[in-house]
Amino acid sequence: MLKVVLLRHGESLWNQENRFTGWTDIDLSETGVTEVHRAAKMLKEQNFVFDIVFTSVLKRAIRTAWIVLDELDLMWIPVHKSWRLNERHYGALQGLNKREMMEKYGEQQIHQWRRGYHVSPPALEETDGRHPRFDARYDNLPRTDIPACESLRDTTARVLPYWHEAIVPRMREEKRLLISAHGNSLRSLVKHLSSIGDEEVSGLNIPTGFPLIYEFDEGLRPITNYYLGSPDEISQAIESVVGQAGVKK
Amino acid sequence: MLKVVLLRHGESLWNQENRFTGWTDIDLSETGVTEVHRAAKMLKEQNFVFDIVFTSVLKRAIRTAWIVLDELDLMWIPVHKSWRLNERHYGALQGLNKREMMEKYGEQQIHQWRRGYHVSPPALEETDGRHPRFDARYDNLPRTDIPACESLRDTTARVLPYWHEAIVPRMREEKRLLISAHGNSLRSLVKHLSSIGDEEVSGLNIPTGFPLIYEFDEGLRPITNYYLGSPDEISQAIESVVGQAGVKK
Repeated sequence: MLKVVLLRHGESLWNQENRFTGWTDIDLSETGVTEVHRAAKMLKEQNFVFDIVFTSVLKRAIRTAWIVLDELDLMWIPVHKSWRLNERHYGALQGLNKREMMEKYGEQQIHQWRRGYHVSPPALEETDGRHPRFDARYDNLPRTDIPACESLRDTTARVLPYWHEAIVPRMREEKRLLISAHGNSLRSLVKHLSSIGDEEVSGLNIPTGFPLIYEFDEGLRPITNYYLGSPDEISQAIESVVGQAGVKK
Repeated sequence: MLKVVLLRHGESLWNQENRFTGWTDIDLSETGVTEVHRAAKMLKEQNFVFDIVFTSVLKRAIRTAWIVLDELDLMWIPVHKSWRLNERHYGALQGLNKREMMEKYGEQQIHQWRRGYHVSPPALEETDGRHPRFDARYDNLPRTDIPACESLRDTTARVLPYWHEAIVPRMREEKRLLISAHGNSLRSLVKHLSSIGDEEVSGLNIPTGFPLIYEFDEGLRPITNYYLGSPDEISQAIESVVGQAGVKK
Protein backbone atom coordinates (compact mmCIF):
# COMPACT_ATOMS: atom_id res chain seq x y z
CA MET A 1 0.00 0.00 0.00
CA LEU A 2 1.63 3.25 -1.16
CA LYS A 3 1.20 6.15 1.26
CA VAL A 4 2.09 9.81 0.88
CA VAL A 5 2.12 12.00 3.97
CA LEU A 6 1.15 15.67 3.76
CA LEU A 7 2.10 17.89 6.67
CA ARG A 8 1.18 21.53 7.10
CA HIS A 9 3.94 23.36 9.00
CA GLY A 10 3.30 24.30 12.62
CA GLU A 11 2.11 27.75 13.72
CA SER A 12 4.39 30.56 12.50
CA LEU A 13 5.19 33.81 14.25
CA TRP A 14 2.81 35.64 11.92
CA ASN A 15 0.00 33.10 12.38
CA GLN A 16 0.39 34.09 16.01
CA GLU A 17 0.26 37.80 15.16
CA ASN A 18 -2.68 37.16 12.78
CA ARG A 19 -0.86 38.63 9.77
CA PHE A 20 -1.06 37.55 6.13
CA THR A 21 2.20 35.70 5.48
CA GLY A 22 2.20 34.21 1.97
CA TRP A 23 5.74 34.14 0.61
CA THR A 24 7.18 36.14 3.51
CA ASP A 25 9.85 33.90 5.05
CA ILE A 26 8.60 33.77 8.63
CA ASP A 27 9.83 31.12 11.07
CA LEU A 28 7.81 28.77 13.28
CA SER A 29 6.69 30.04 16.67
CA GLU A 30 7.54 28.03 19.79
CA THR A 31 4.01 26.62 19.65
CA GLY A 32 4.66 25.69 16.03
CA VAL A 33 7.83 23.81 16.95
CA THR A 34 5.90 21.92 19.63
CA GLU A 35 3.15 21.05 17.15
CA VAL A 36 5.69 19.60 14.72
CA HIS A 37 7.36 17.52 17.42
CA ARG A 38 3.95 16.09 18.29
CA ALA A 39 3.32 15.28 14.59
CA ALA A 40 6.75 13.65 14.32
CA LYS A 41 6.08 11.53 17.41
CA MET A 42 2.78 10.34 15.93
CA LEU A 43 4.57 9.34 12.72
CA LYS A 44 7.22 7.54 14.74
CA GLU A 45 4.67 5.67 16.85
CA GLN A 46 3.00 4.49 13.65
CA ASN A 47 6.40 3.36 12.29
CA PHE A 48 6.39 5.73 9.33
CA VAL A 49 9.66 5.78 7.39
CA PHE A 50 10.41 8.09 4.47
CA ASP A 51 12.76 7.91 1.51
CA ILE A 52 12.40 11.50 0.26
CA VAL A 53 11.01 14.79 1.56
CA PHE A 54 9.53 17.52 -0.60
CA THR A 55 9.16 21.00 0.81
CA SER A 56 8.95 24.66 -0.18
CA VAL A 57 11.72 27.26 -0.10
CA LEU A 58 10.19 28.85 3.01
CA LYS A 59 11.80 28.17 6.36
CA ARG A 60 8.64 27.35 8.30
CA ALA A 61 8.07 24.33 6.03
CA ILE A 62 11.78 23.44 5.86
CA ARG A 63 12.15 23.58 9.65
CA THR A 64 9.04 21.40 9.93
CA ALA A 65 10.73 18.86 7.64
CA TRP A 66 13.99 19.07 9.62
CA ILE A 67 12.23 18.45 12.94
CA VAL A 68 10.44 15.39 11.55
CA LEU A 69 13.65 14.01 10.01
CA ASP A 70 15.53 14.56 13.23
CA GLU A 71 12.83 12.84 15.32
CA LEU A 72 12.60 9.87 12.90
CA ASP A 73 16.42 9.60 12.69
CA LEU A 74 16.28 10.21 8.93
CA MET A 75 18.38 13.34 8.59
CA TRP A 76 20.33 11.64 5.79
CA ILE A 77 17.47 11.31 3.26
CA PRO A 78 17.16 13.77 0.34
CA VAL A 79 15.12 16.94 0.91
CA HIS A 80 13.92 18.59 -2.30
CA LYS A 81 12.93 22.24 -1.95
CA SER A 82 10.78 23.95 -4.57
CA TRP A 83 9.06 27.33 -4.78
CA ARG A 84 6.15 25.41 -6.32
CA LEU A 85 5.22 24.14 -2.85
CA ASN A 86 5.28 27.66 -1.36
CA GLU A 87 2.26 29.12 0.39
CA ARG A 88 -0.15 31.08 -1.83
CA HIS A 89 1.30 34.51 -2.63
CA TYR A 90 -0.87 36.97 -0.75
CA GLY A 91 0.14 40.03 -2.80
CA ALA A 92 -0.08 43.42 -1.15
CA LEU A 93 -1.80 41.88 1.89
CA GLN A 94 1.47 40.24 2.99
CA GLY A 95 2.53 41.55 6.36
CA LEU A 96 -0.83 43.16 7.11
CA ASN A 97 -3.02 42.24 10.07
CA LYS A 98 -6.01 40.11 9.15
CA ARG A 99 -8.37 41.71 11.65
CA GLU A 100 -7.38 45.26 10.68
CA MET A 101 -7.90 44.40 7.03
CA MET A 102 -11.30 42.99 7.93
CA GLU A 103 -12.24 46.23 9.65
CA LYS A 104 -11.04 48.19 6.62
CA TYR A 105 -12.47 46.07 3.79
CA GLY A 106 -15.26 44.16 5.52
CA GLU A 107 -15.71 40.56 6.41
CA GLN A 108 -16.98 39.49 3.02
CA GLN A 109 -14.08 40.93 1.04
CA ILE A 110 -11.54 39.25 3.32
CA HIS A 111 -13.41 35.98 3.13
CA GLN A 112 -13.34 36.27 -0.67
CA TRP A 113 -9.62 37.01 -0.69
CA ARG A 114 -8.96 34.10 1.65
CA ARG A 115 -11.33 31.55 0.25
CA GLY A 116 -12.65 32.50 -3.22
CA TYR A 117 -11.02 30.01 -5.59
CA HIS A 118 -10.61 32.49 -8.44
CA VAL A 119 -10.07 35.61 -6.36
CA SER A 120 -6.66 37.28 -6.14
CA PRO A 121 -5.76 39.73 -3.42
CA PRO A 122 -4.38 43.12 -4.57
CA ALA A 123 -1.05 42.61 -6.39
CA LEU A 124 2.30 43.86 -5.12
CA GLU A 125 3.73 46.75 -7.11
CA GLU A 126 6.79 45.84 -9.19
CA THR A 127 8.80 48.33 -7.16
CA ASP A 128 7.58 47.07 -3.78
CA GLY A 129 10.50 45.71 -1.74
CA ARG A 130 8.29 42.75 -0.79
CA HIS A 131 8.10 41.67 -4.47
CA PRO A 132 9.70 38.21 -4.90
CA ARG A 133 11.80 39.44 -7.83
CA PHE A 134 14.07 41.02 -5.20
CA ASP A 135 14.55 37.68 -3.43
CA ALA A 136 17.65 35.64 -4.40
CA ARG A 137 15.79 32.36 -4.00
CA TYR A 138 13.70 33.15 -7.11
CA ASP A 139 16.64 34.40 -9.23
CA ASN A 140 16.63 31.38 -11.52
CA LEU A 141 12.88 31.44 -12.25
CA PRO A 142 11.56 32.77 -15.56
CA ARG A 143 10.24 36.24 -14.80
CA THR A 144 6.73 35.13 -15.86
CA ASP A 145 6.66 32.46 -13.14
CA ILE A 146 7.16 34.99 -10.34
CA PRO A 147 3.80 36.10 -8.97
CA ALA A 148 2.86 39.49 -7.50
CA CYS A 149 -0.25 37.82 -5.99
CA GLU A 150 -2.13 34.56 -6.43
CA SER A 151 -5.64 33.19 -6.28
CA LEU A 152 -5.90 29.60 -5.06
CA ARG A 153 -6.40 28.70 -8.71
CA ASP A 154 -3.03 30.29 -9.51
CA THR A 155 -1.43 28.37 -6.65
CA THR A 156 -2.95 25.12 -7.89
CA ALA A 157 -1.67 25.87 -11.40
CA ARG A 158 1.94 25.95 -10.20
CA VAL A 159 1.68 23.19 -7.56
CA LEU A 160 0.22 20.51 -9.85
CA PRO A 161 3.05 20.43 -12.43
CA TYR A 162 5.40 19.74 -9.51
CA TRP A 163 3.12 16.98 -8.27
CA HIS A 164 3.04 15.36 -11.70
CA GLU A 165 6.67 15.88 -12.71
CA ALA A 166 8.62 15.65 -9.45
CA ILE A 167 6.47 13.68 -7.01
CA VAL A 168 4.43 11.13 -8.98
CA PRO A 169 7.53 9.63 -10.67
CA ARG A 170 8.96 8.86 -7.23
CA MET A 171 5.65 7.26 -6.22
CA ARG A 172 6.03 5.00 -9.26
CA GLU A 173 9.37 3.96 -7.77
CA GLU A 174 7.47 3.13 -4.55
CA LYS A 175 9.35 5.75 -2.59
CA ARG A 176 7.80 6.71 0.73
CA LEU A 177 7.23 10.45 0.53
CA LEU A 178 6.68 13.27 3.00
CA ILE A 179 5.44 16.64 1.74
CA SER A 180 6.01 19.42 4.24
CA ALA A 181 4.17 22.48 2.97
CA HIS A 182 1.58 25.20 3.59
CA GLY A 183 -2.14 25.68 4.10
CA ASN A 184 -2.86 26.63 0.51
CA SER A 185 -0.29 24.58 -1.41
CA LEU A 186 -1.68 21.57 0.46
CA ARG A 187 -5.28 22.65 -0.24
CA SER A 188 -4.32 22.68 -3.94
CA LEU A 189 -2.99 19.14 -3.68
CA VAL A 190 -5.94 17.85 -1.67
CA LYS A 191 -8.36 19.51 -4.11
CA HIS A 192 -6.70 17.54 -6.88
CA LEU A 193 -6.30 14.24 -5.03
CA SER A 194 -9.82 14.23 -3.62
CA SER A 195 -11.45 15.82 -6.70
CA ILE A 196 -12.93 18.75 -4.78
CA GLY A 197 -14.80 21.33 -6.88
CA ASP A 198 -13.79 25.00 -7.22
CA GLU A 199 -16.69 26.07 -5.00
CA GLU A 200 -16.42 23.30 -2.43
CA VAL A 201 -12.71 23.89 -1.84
CA SER A 202 -13.55 27.07 0.06
CA GLY A 203 -14.78 24.83 2.86
CA LEU A 204 -11.54 22.80 2.96
CA ASN A 205 -9.28 23.65 5.89
CA ILE A 206 -6.08 21.84 6.77
CA PRO A 207 -4.91 22.03 10.38
CA THR A 208 -1.27 22.76 11.23
CA GLY A 209 0.83 19.91 12.57
CA PHE A 210 -1.37 16.88 11.91
CA PRO A 211 -0.02 14.36 9.36
CA LEU A 212 -2.54 13.76 6.58
CA ILE A 213 -2.08 10.30 5.07
CA TYR A 214 -3.14 9.56 1.49
CA GLU A 215 -3.23 5.93 0.43
CA PHE A 216 -3.00 4.97 -3.26
CA ASP A 217 -3.79 1.83 -5.21
CA GLU A 218 -1.39 0.31 -7.74
CA GLY A 219 -2.64 2.67 -10.45
CA LEU A 220 -1.70 5.57 -8.13
CA ARG A 221 -5.36 6.43 -7.61
CA PRO A 222 -6.04 7.81 -4.14
CA ILE A 223 -8.30 5.36 -2.32
CA THR A 224 -8.50 6.81 1.16
CA ASN A 225 -7.11 9.53 3.36
CA TYR A 226 -7.06 10.28 7.06
CA TYR A 227 -5.29 12.34 9.69
CA LEU A 228 -3.09 10.94 12.43
CA GLY A 229 -4.18 12.30 15.79
CA SER A 230 -7.17 12.59 18.05
CA PRO A 231 -10.32 13.58 16.12
CA ASP A 232 -11.20 16.17 18.79
CA GLU A 233 -7.83 17.88 18.58
CA ILE A 234 -7.96 17.84 14.79
CA SER A 235 -11.45 19.42 14.72
CA GLN A 236 -10.27 22.05 17.15
CA ALA A 237 -7.20 22.77 15.01
CA ILE A 238 -9.36 23.08 11.89
CA GLU A 239 -11.71 25.46 13.72
CA SER A 240 -8.76 27.61 14.64
CA VAL A 241 -7.73 27.86 10.94
CA VAL A 242 -11.29 28.84 9.99
CA GLY A 243 -11.39 31.47 12.72
CA GLN A 244 -8.00 32.98 11.93
CA ALA A 245 -9.22 36.22 10.44
CA GLY A 246 -11.93 36.49 13.05
CA VAL A 247 -14.33 35.75 10.17
CA LYS A 248 -16.13 33.06 12.09
CA LYS A 249 -15.94 32.78 15.85
CA MET B 1 37.53 35.16 -6.87
CA LEU B 2 35.99 31.72 -6.44
CA LYS B 3 35.99 30.42 -2.89
CA VAL B 4 35.03 27.04 -1.49
CA VAL B 5 34.53 26.70 2.26
CA LEU B 6 35.39 23.45 4.04
CA LEU B 7 34.00 22.96 7.52
CA ARG B 8 34.72 20.05 9.84
CA HIS B 9 31.68 19.32 12.01
CA GLY B 10 31.80 20.35 15.67
CA GLU B 11 32.70 17.96 18.48
CA SER B 12 30.51 14.86 18.56
CA LEU B 13 29.35 12.89 21.58
CA TRP B 14 31.95 10.22 20.82
CA ASN B 15 34.76 12.75 20.32
CA GLN B 16 33.86 13.68 23.89
CA GLU B 17 33.99 10.05 25.02
CA ASN B 18 37.22 9.53 23.03
CA ARG B 19 35.76 6.67 20.98
CA PHE B 20 36.49 5.80 17.33
CA THR B 21 33.40 6.97 15.42
CA GLY B 22 33.90 6.49 11.68
CA TRP B 23 30.57 5.76 10.03
CA THR B 24 28.69 5.42 13.32
CA ASP B 25 25.93 8.05 13.17
CA ILE B 26 26.72 10.00 16.32
CA ASP B 27 25.27 13.47 16.91
CA LEU B 28 27.08 16.68 17.89
CA SER B 29 27.71 17.31 21.58
CA GLU B 30 26.54 20.58 23.13
CA THR B 31 30.09 21.85 22.75
CA GLY B 32 29.96 20.82 19.11
CA VAL B 33 26.75 22.80 18.54
CA THR B 34 28.39 25.84 20.14
CA GLU B 35 31.47 25.45 17.93
CA VAL B 36 29.34 25.39 14.80
CA HIS B 37 27.39 28.49 15.85
CA ARG B 38 30.72 30.26 16.32
CA ALA B 39 31.83 29.14 12.84
CA ALA B 40 28.55 30.30 11.34
CA LYS B 41 28.88 33.70 13.00
CA MET B 42 32.37 34.11 11.56
CA LEU B 43 31.06 33.31 8.08
CA LYS B 44 28.24 35.79 8.58
CA GLU B 45 30.56 38.55 9.77
CA GLN B 46 32.67 38.02 6.65
CA ASN B 47 29.53 38.19 4.48
CA PHE B 48 29.82 34.67 3.15
CA VAL B 49 26.84 33.53 1.10
CA PHE B 50 26.39 30.04 -0.35
CA ASP B 51 24.45 28.61 -3.28
CA ILE B 52 24.84 24.92 -2.51
CA VAL B 53 25.92 22.77 0.43
CA PHE B 54 27.58 19.38 0.14
CA THR B 55 27.63 17.10 3.14
CA SER B 56 27.84 13.46 4.17
CA VAL B 57 24.99 11.16 5.17
CA LEU B 58 26.05 11.37 8.84
CA LYS B 59 24.03 13.58 11.15
CA ARG B 60 26.95 15.36 12.82
CA ALA B 61 27.91 16.86 9.43
CA ILE B 62 24.30 17.43 8.36
CA ARG B 63 23.44 19.19 11.61
CA THR B 64 26.56 21.31 11.17
CA ALA B 65 25.27 22.31 7.72
CA TRP B 66 21.78 23.02 9.09
CA ILE B 67 23.11 25.27 11.85
CA VAL B 68 25.17 27.27 9.36
CA LEU B 69 22.24 27.59 6.94
CA ASP B 70 19.94 28.67 9.74
CA GLU B 71 22.40 31.29 11.00
CA LEU B 72 23.05 32.66 7.47
CA ASP B 73 19.30 32.64 6.66
CA LEU B 74 19.91 30.25 3.77
CA MET B 75 17.76 27.30 4.78
CA TRP B 76 16.26 27.30 1.27
CA ILE B 77 19.42 26.41 -0.69
CA PRO B 78 20.03 22.84 -1.91
CA VAL B 79 21.86 20.45 0.42
CA HIS B 80 23.41 17.45 -1.33
CA LYS B 81 24.22 14.51 0.93
CA SER B 82 26.63 11.81 -0.18
CA TRP B 83 28.24 8.82 1.56
CA ARG B 84 31.40 9.80 -0.35
CA LEU B 85 31.92 12.67 2.10
CA ASN B 86 31.52 10.37 5.14
CA GLU B 87 34.25 10.09 7.75
CA ARG B 88 36.84 7.38 7.15
CA HIS B 89 35.39 3.97 8.01
CA TYR B 90 37.21 2.85 11.14
CA GLY B 91 36.33 -0.85 10.77
CA ALA B 92 36.24 -2.94 13.93
CA LEU B 93 37.61 -0.03 15.98
CA GLN B 94 34.28 1.82 15.67
CA GLY B 95 32.74 2.34 19.08
CA LEU B 96 35.92 1.44 20.98
CA ASN B 97 37.73 3.78 23.32
CA LYS B 98 40.89 5.28 21.86
CA ARG B 99 42.83 5.24 25.12
CA GLU B 100 41.85 1.64 25.93
CA MET B 101 42.86 0.58 22.44
CA MET B 102 46.17 2.36 22.96
CA GLU B 103 46.78 0.47 26.17
CA LYS B 104 45.92 -2.77 24.43
CA TYR B 105 47.77 -2.33 21.14
CA GLY B 106 50.37 0.27 22.00
CA GLU B 107 50.85 3.87 21.01
CA GLN B 108 52.59 3.12 17.76
CA GLN B 109 49.91 0.77 16.40
CA ILE B 110 47.15 3.29 17.16
CA HIS B 111 49.16 6.08 15.60
CA GLN B 112 49.58 3.91 12.47
CA TRP B 113 45.83 3.16 12.36
CA ARG B 114 45.00 6.80 12.81
CA ARG B 115 47.62 8.39 10.63
CA GLY B 116 49.33 5.89 8.32
CA TYR B 117 48.11 6.78 4.83
CA HIS B 118 48.01 3.20 3.58
CA VAL B 119 47.11 1.52 6.87
CA SER B 120 43.63 0.06 7.43
CA PRO B 121 42.30 -0.71 10.87
CA PRO B 122 40.96 -4.27 11.39
CA ALA B 123 37.92 -4.85 9.16
CA LEU B 124 34.39 -5.42 10.45
CA GLU B 125 33.13 -8.97 9.98
CA GLU B 126 30.41 -9.32 7.35
CA THR B 127 28.05 -10.52 10.08
CA ASP B 128 28.86 -7.70 12.51
CA GLY B 129 25.75 -5.58 13.16
CA ARG B 130 27.93 -2.48 12.78
CA HIS B 131 28.65 -3.36 9.12
CA PRO B 132 27.25 -0.66 6.81
CA ARG B 133 25.50 -3.25 4.65
CA PHE B 134 22.84 -3.38 7.41
CA ASP B 135 22.25 0.38 7.19
CA ALA B 136 19.38 1.55 4.93
CA ARG B 137 21.29 4.64 3.85
CA TYR B 138 23.71 2.47 1.87
CA ASP B 139 21.05 0.21 0.30
CA ASN B 140 21.47 1.69 -3.16
CA LEU B 141 25.26 1.40 -3.28
CA PRO B 142 26.97 -1.36 -5.26
CA ARG B 143 28.06 -3.95 -2.71
CA THR B 144 31.71 -3.39 -3.72
CA ASP B 145 31.52 0.28 -2.72
CA ILE B 146 30.56 -0.51 0.89
CA PRO B 147 33.69 -0.68 3.06
CA ALA B 148 34.31 -2.84 6.13
CA CYS B 149 37.25 -0.55 7.00
CA GLU B 150 39.28 2.13 5.23
CA SER B 151 42.79 3.50 5.13
CA LEU B 152 43.02 7.22 4.41
CA ARG B 153 44.03 6.20 0.88
CA ASP B 154 40.72 4.31 0.58
CA THR B 155 38.83 7.34 1.85
CA THR B 156 40.63 9.58 -0.64
CA ALA B 157 39.79 7.14 -3.44
CA ARG B 158 36.04 7.54 -2.83
CA VAL B 159 36.06 11.25 -1.93
CA LEU B 160 37.91 12.47 -5.05
CA PRO B 161 35.43 11.15 -7.66
CA TYR B 162 32.74 13.13 -5.82
CA TRP B 163 34.95 16.21 -5.85
CA HIS B 164 35.54 15.91 -9.59
CA GLU B 165 32.05 14.82 -10.67
CA ALA B 166 29.70 16.60 -8.24
CA ILE B 167 31.58 19.59 -6.85
CA VAL B 168 33.95 20.88 -9.57
CA PRO B 169 31.14 21.22 -12.17
CA ARG B 170 29.33 23.58 -9.78
CA MET B 171 32.52 25.56 -9.30
CA ARG B 172 32.63 25.98 -13.09
CA GLU B 173 29.15 27.53 -12.77
CA GLU B 174 30.65 29.91 -10.19
CA LYS B 175 28.44 28.56 -7.42
CA ARG B 176 29.51 29.45 -3.91
CA LEU B 177 29.97 26.13 -2.12
CA LEU B 178 30.10 24.95 1.47
CA ILE B 179 31.37 21.45 2.24
CA SER B 180 30.38 20.27 5.70
CA ALA B 181 32.24 17.06 6.39
CA HIS B 182 34.62 15.12 8.63
CA GLY B 183 38.24 15.08 9.79
CA ASN B 184 39.38 12.48 7.28
CA SER B 185 37.16 13.20 4.28
CA LEU B 186 38.42 16.79 4.56
CA ARG B 187 42.03 15.63 4.95
CA SER B 188 41.55 13.72 1.69
CA LEU B 189 40.33 16.85 -0.03
CA VAL B 190 43.04 19.09 1.42
CA LYS B 191 45.69 16.50 0.48
CA HIS B 192 44.47 16.76 -3.09
CA LEU B 193 43.96 20.53 -3.21
CA SER B 194 47.26 21.37 -1.55
CA SER B 195 49.23 18.52 -3.16
CA ILE B 196 50.34 17.00 0.12
CA GLY B 197 52.35 13.77 -0.14
CA ASP B 198 51.28 10.41 1.29
CA GLU B 199 53.83 10.67 4.10
CA GLU B 200 53.34 14.36 4.87
CA VAL B 201 49.57 14.02 5.19
CA SER B 202 50.03 12.23 8.52
CA GLY B 203 50.95 15.62 9.97
CA LEU B 204 47.82 17.32 8.60
CA ASN B 205 45.17 17.97 11.25
CA ILE B 206 41.96 19.88 10.68
CA PRO B 207 40.31 21.47 13.71
CA THR B 208 36.56 21.14 14.31
CA GLY B 209 34.41 24.20 13.76
CA PHE B 210 36.80 26.57 11.95
CA PRO B 211 35.87 27.41 8.34
CA LEU B 212 38.77 26.63 5.97
CA ILE B 213 38.62 28.84 2.89
CA TYR B 214 40.16 27.74 -0.40
CA GLU B 215 40.50 30.35 -3.13
CA PHE B 216 40.79 29.32 -6.78
CA ASP B 217 41.93 31.08 -9.93
CA GLU B 218 39.94 31.04 -13.17
CA GLY B 219 41.43 27.70 -14.15
CA LEU B 220 40.12 26.34 -10.82
CA ARG B 221 43.64 25.96 -9.48
CA PRO B 222 43.82 26.53 -5.72
CA ILE B 223 45.90 29.64 -5.11
CA THR B 224 45.60 30.14 -1.38
CA ASN B 225 43.85 28.83 1.69
CA TYR B 226 43.30 30.05 5.23
CA TYR B 227 41.13 29.52 8.28
CA LEU B 228 38.65 32.03 9.64
CA GLY B 229 39.23 32.59 13.34
CA SER B 230 41.91 33.58 15.79
CA PRO B 231 45.26 31.85 15.07
CA ASP B 232 45.70 30.99 18.74
CA GLU B 233 42.31 29.29 19.01
CA ILE B 234 42.94 27.42 15.76
CA SER B 235 46.36 26.14 16.95
CA GLN B 236 44.77 25.05 20.19
CA ALA B 237 41.97 23.25 18.32
CA ILE B 238 44.52 21.50 16.09
CA GLU B 239 46.51 20.44 19.16
CA SER B 240 43.39 18.94 20.65
CA VAL B 241 42.84 16.84 17.48
CA VAL B 242 46.45 15.64 17.61
CA GLY B 243 46.10 14.74 21.29
CA GLN B 244 42.77 12.91 20.90
CA ALA B 245 44.07 9.40 21.45
CA GLY B 246 46.42 10.60 24.15
CA VAL B 247 49.19 9.90 21.64
CA LYS B 248 50.76 13.29 22.14
CA LYS B 249 49.98 15.51 25.09
